[in-house]
Amino acid sequence: MEFSQMAPQELQALYEVLTKKYQQFKAQGLRLNMSRGKPSGEQLDLCRCVNQTLTDFICENGEDVRNYSSLAGIPEARRLFSEIFGVAETQVLAAGSSSLNLMYDTVCRAFVHGVLPGSGPWHQQGKIKFLCPVPGYDRHFAITESFGIEMITVPMLDDGPDMERVEELAAKDDLIKGIWCVPIYSNPDGITYSDQVVRRIAAMPAAAQDFRVFWDMAYCVHHLDRHDRDYLLNIYDECVKCGHQDRPYLFASTSKVTMAGSGISAMAMSPANFAWTLEQLSVQTICHDNVNQLRHLRLLPNLAAVEDIMDKHAVLLRPKFQVVLDALENEISPYGIGHWHKPKGGYFISVFTENGCAKRVVSLCHEAGVELTPAGATYPYGNDPADSNIRLAPTYASLADLAAAMELFCLAIKLAAIEKILGLETSPDVL
Amino acid sequence: MEFSQMAPQELQALYEVLTKKYQQFKAQGLRLNMSRGKPSGEQLDLCRCVNQTLTDFICENGEDVRNYSSLAGIPEARRLFSEIFGVAETQVLAAGSSSLNLMYDTVCRAFVHGVLPGSGPWHQQGKIKFLCPVPGYDRHFAITESFGIEMITVPMLDDGPDMERVEELAAKDDLIKGIWCVPIYSNPDGITYSDQVVRRIAAMPAAAQDFRVFWDMAYCVHHLDRHDRDYLLNIYDECVKCGHQDRPYLFASTSKVTMAGSGISAMAMSPANFAWTLEQLSVQTICHDNVNQLRHLRLLPNLAAVEDIMDKHAVLLRPKFQVVLDALENEISPYGIGHWHKPKGGYFISVFTENGCAKRVVSLCHEAGVELTPAGATYPYGNDPADSNIRLAPTYASLADLAAAMELFCLAIKLAAIEKILGLETSPDVL
Repeated sequence: MEFSQMAPQELQALYEVLTKKYQQFKAQGLRLNMSRGKPSGEQLDLCRCVNQTLTDFICENGEDVRNYSSLAGIPEARRLFSEIFGVAETQVLAAGSSSLNLMYDTVCRAFVHGVLPGSGPWHQQGKIKFLCPVPGYDRHFAITESFGIEMITVPMLDDGPDMERVEELAAKDDLIKGIWCVPIYSNPDGITYSDQVVRRIAAMPAAAQDFRVFWDMAYCVHHLDRHDRDYLLNIYDECVKCGHQDRPYLFASTSKVTMAGSGISAMAMSPANFAWTLEQLSVQTICHDNVNQLRHLRLLPNLAAVEDIMDKHAVLLRPKFQVVLDALENEISPYGIGHWHKPKGGYFISVFTENGCAKRVVSLCHEAGVELTPAGATYPYGNDPADSNIRLAPTYASLADLAAAMELFCLAIKLAAIEKILGLETSPDVL
Repeated sequence: MEFSQMAPQELQALYEVLTKKYQQFKAQGLRLNMSRGKPSGEQLDLCRCVNQTLTDFICENGEDVRNYSSLAGIPEARRLFSEIFGVAETQVLAAGSSSLNLMYDTVCRAFVHGVLPGSGPWHQQGKIKFLCPVPGYDRHFAITESFGIEMITVPMLDDGPDMERVEELAAKDDLIKGIWCVPIYSNPDGITYSDQVVRRIAAMPAAAQDFRVFWDMAYCVHHLDRHDRDYLLNIYDECVKCGHQDRPYLFASTSKVTMAGSGISAMAMSPANFAWTLEQLSVQTICHDNVNQLRHLRLLPNLAAVEDIMDKHAVLLRPKFQVVLDALENEISPYGIGHWHKPKGGYFISVFTENGCAKRVVSLCHEAGVELTPAGATYPYGNDPADSNIRLAPTYASLADLAAAMELFCLAIKLAAIEKILGLETSPDVL
């Protein structure tokens, strides 16, 4: 029976039972962390051989990658990411170990120098703004916040951001310079943008001539089952069709393919964006770590090789996602106190509790030894106005730990929901 | 006999002989490049084993470096650079493959956010300026130029920058925010700052509260002979003594120890600078490539191990420097048409031709197939007012190629000097 249909006495009785259970949990002294999207040790071991002895250091263009070599990356790496992005090799920059760093630097270049020659640095254009579909990725929001860029939230719907709202805002305000997108298996909901949404993002008029779409394809090959996967339309092709080829910056990396902190990253963009980016990059560094690119390309010469590795990741990740979804389905669904999207890939499951309950749930879990992503982290400035969204990161923990953590998590959602319905005091002292 | 003491007829006769020699050189169709400070293939092979199979990925603090791990770098890398810098491990950031990138990002952070909380972003402080000892490193100048920072040149003397001038400028102008320094085996002269100069840089009053010394220790372990080497005073210690502990940023890397494009880099700074840098860095990336740090540290666990490798580099580099110096000594000294410093380490020899001759020399060499660093590159905005300085990079070429290139180079200096003395037309058609 849904909590909303239960009598107060019933709820009160249930609360007392659940409180006892919670106290038993606390007594166990759990120490689990589900706060970040980290691969597990078993996942990292899938690509151990990327670190095998490298003896031949000459890449396809004849350069010894140990020496200063191509700023745009080695040809084989650019080709691999060209396949992943669906954008010509000549428009692909293969870079260092962090796509987040590429995104930060791209915002930074626009802030300091402007997006293209003559477009004007963002820092000289007043209080600029970004559109932020929410819930979203806290590290994206941290970047824009650090540059003093105002963040305007836009709700995520089942097929991507609310495009009515995006179009309305972008069309009227030339201080809106960009939008953060994780278009496939979004962080945290695991939603993939529909073809219609992608086309609208590509086609919409933007008041700012230097409006940019930050298209973070963090999970583009990260299907939980390659036979039952989402597909994402090619944003670059759609933008070209609309005469907006300079609009999108595409980002990806092998962080969740090979090694989280030591993979290779890349970005793709229009020829004009590419030329300008490389010109400025040539001041910032001589080249990226092309040995690490070669190390990766020897193991992963093409998209097919990447997909084979991703199948192995999926074997490890499917049961973890299933444990989380089963717990939610069995322990939360019947009571009508939460909802979530069932993702077909990515790294997260995002749960919406009853309004006003998320902080309480995270706090209850924390006190019993399970760390979750802080409530609010999925919103700009850490502020979820509904205090409802919680991001679960099931990849790092073992299955057993995950099952224990989910039991606690569901218990905490019930406790918080009853407290809200009954108007109970929720100070930690109560428990 | 010095050219200045020769009769015009003698010079004219010599010019005709030298022109014939030059034409013979051109006919050879040389294709050599001495323009950049790149290690040779033999040097890169000295550290082949850094790329041997890595099987144990756990660093000293227990983290699996393949996963997201410490933002400040692995403890063993921070300790190694602590030894190199002479600054406490807790104040060392071990980072990615490029110290140039660290320098760029450090300037960028100051430009966007300011050097410390509350100090004010440089971009909001008007037309800011940097002091640039000249000749200097073109990539340093490119960074400041890209941020629109005005560069004020200061002459390099035999023991470092002209400190009278540095002190005078820094004391009076609060828009002067920094100085670029390559304090040991300077690029391009190979000069090491004297203790006195280091102490004056540390002690001098600066009008700008947020004045910073960019201390690029690119060649700090790069002696041509460890038994006949220069020593550099510890700038950080000196700054602490003067209450200026936030003044210096120290940079170094293994680019010319292990692999030019794929080594590891580091910076050291005061506790306050470190905290602020890490706070902002945490927005830019999750961590650097800590696998590459571990790869390096397994081979180079301490400074003694680095010094052993550097001895092997020295064995390869000494004869190359000797070929250059011998050629200059034999072919230029007797004629009084150039001077240079004899470096005990580093990557360059910097030749001062007669004023007004450097561009001509570089052009003559280029036409005969030898690429030198462009004349002027060692000055901000590519402008050497005396048109005199040429940077020679002897490390990459083979000994035989180097000997040929130096023969041409000395010939070109002579031709240019005679053309200047006799007021000859210097269009390429003449030859």
